[in-house]
Amino acid sequence: MQVHLIGTGAVGSLYGGLLARSGAALTVQCRSDFVEVQRDGIRIESHVGLGNWVFRPDQVIRAGEPLVKPPDIVILAIKLTPRCDRVALLSPVIGPKTVIVSISNGLEVENELADSFPDNEILGGVAFVCATRINPGHVVHQAYGHLVLGRYPSGPSLAGEALVNRWLSTGASAEYSLQLETVRWQKALWNASFSALCTISHTHTASVLGSAEELVRQVMTEIHETATRLGHELPNGIIEKQINGTHRMPPYLPSMSLDQRAGDPTEKEVIVGNAVRAARRAGVKTPHLDTLYTLLKLQE
Amino acid sequence: MQVHLIGTGAVGSLYGGLLARSGAALTVQCRSDFVEVQRDGIRIESHVGLGNWVFRPDQVIRAGEPLVKPPDIVILAIKLTPRCDRVALLSPVIGPKTVIVSISNGLEVENELADSFPDNEILGGVAFVCATRINPGHVVHQAYGHLVLGRYPSGPSLAGEALVNRWLSTGASAEYSLQLETVRWQKALWNASFSALCTISHTHTASVLGSAEELVRQVMTEIHETATRLGHELPNGIIEKQINGTHRMPPYLPSMSLDQRAGDPTEKEVIVGNAVRAARRAGVKTPHLDTLYTLLKLQE
Repeated sequence: MQVHLIGTGAVGSLYGGLLARSGAALTVQCRSDFVEVQRDGIRIESHVGLGNWVFRPDQVIRAGEPLVKPPDIVILAIKLTPRCDRVALLSPVIGPKTVIVSISNGLEVENELADSFPDNEILGGVAFVCATRINPGHVVHQAYGHLVLGRYPSGPSLAGEALVNRWLSTGASAEYSLQLETVRWQKALWNASFSALCTISHTHTASVLGSAEELVRQVMTEIHETATRLGHELPNGIIEKQINGTHRMPPYLPSMSLDQRAGDPTEKEVIVGNAVRAARRAGVKTPHLDTLYTLLKLQE
Repeated sequence: MQVHLIGTGAVGSLYGGLLARSGAALTVQCRSDFVEVQRDGIRIESHVGLGNWVFRPDQVIRAGEPLVKPPDIVILAIKLTPRCDRVALLSPVIGPKTVIVSISNGLEVENELADSFPDNEILGGVAFVCATRINPGHVVHQAYGHLVLGRYPSGPSLAGEALVNRWLSTGASAEYSLQLETVRWQKALWNASFSALCTISHTHTASVLGSAEELVRQVMTEIHETATRLGHELPNGIIEKQINGTHRMPPYLPSMSLDQRAGDPTEKEVIVGNAVRAARRAGVKTPHLDTLYTLLKLQE
């Protein structure tokens, strides 16, 4: 299995490194960390049981370098900010049979790829993991770790199941889902509400729950209604389950908050904006969510 | 006319200074600026035609100092934050016939005074003025300047009309309104929406209009509906008029933003919280306004 990984942030490095450990041949496409990764590989320290190891890709390239032959699988693991151009990144490395795997946050993020590469199989990945690139070529996996893969928009995939089996063989937690979009909505319930509230108020999840728990519930209810109206049945009691789960977490700053603090572009459009746009399409009123979205745009 | 002024911020100093100019005898009750005001009086510089002058009160006192006799009128011109105790400030200086005038921001702010001083006439004042205390005893009046006075909850008042006539005699713009509470709702339309949005997003009115004009309109519409349901008929087209007027203003930071930046308590409860509570009482849903209120509490 020849895998081409684009993006060596925390998620790409961790799941790419695990694939390499499972015996896959990996080419890694870097941006700012090219020199370090080519020289030293990527060090991964898992504090939750996946080991400490250095992942040395078969090949380390920069965007635009020619490939000998197209890969079986390209994994795109980058933040989906307004600046990133996924089609431009993918076009040079895609062959007619290459399976595209986009591991990312956000809702309705695969349709652009399906439109641009109508003949390629498209998979989406949703990572429930706490991992951080602390330096170029150095990733720490702090907590959690579950990856859900599914075909866009839904259905089975041999390539997807093969990937999941490879991750499982390394001891990681992963699953194949026939309902990718439903998984995305389930994650968005948490992500759109807490990321927006933490980012706007410059505080962490525990403070948000301390004085805005009812608002969290209202925003989640609006997203839940939108998902349901669009045909995505979320598990019973999921809102209370997510709120109670967050009460048990240590105070946490979502990546949107960290990006904003660092002055980097955020994923507000794919996480919050796409939820708002989906709600309009579905005819669902989401005034609390709309207010948060407007404030995020105003702050940026 | 013996007037006792509590509060030597921008509004109290300006309107107290104008009353003194009209010939009223003023006692001024100071807090942190006692020494400067007693020594030098209060310097007022109006950039919009009311003159530059030094206002020397007949008497300058600190809270708690005994009065020779109760004043005809006490003017309370302080910020209504959760810390301020208006009843404690007023009790020592009120006689049976003293008229209480509370010049302040906010909605439904006179009821507490009416409950505590049921036998005194209570007037409210709403100032549409841009003025700043730049130093202890030094106030600059930058722009605008209109003061509306009215009896709480409504109706005529001889004392109120006498005060308005004194201000008019100095060249200031002032009027007596038979519908005090309607005037408060009219100001709250602008104040609750722009103050909340500017404070939460750490930006000025021009930025808010640049990317959140529709949200301003939605919040104003919710407040308008609440006012109407409570029997306060606001002028036709007032929402568009206020938005267009704000487009013509230079970028402006509401006092709530300035207080928050300075780390001081804000008037969010009387401006935004009271609007939310009135909406609940009136049975009006105000999800956009509710979201802003929760975020203000979260930030503080």
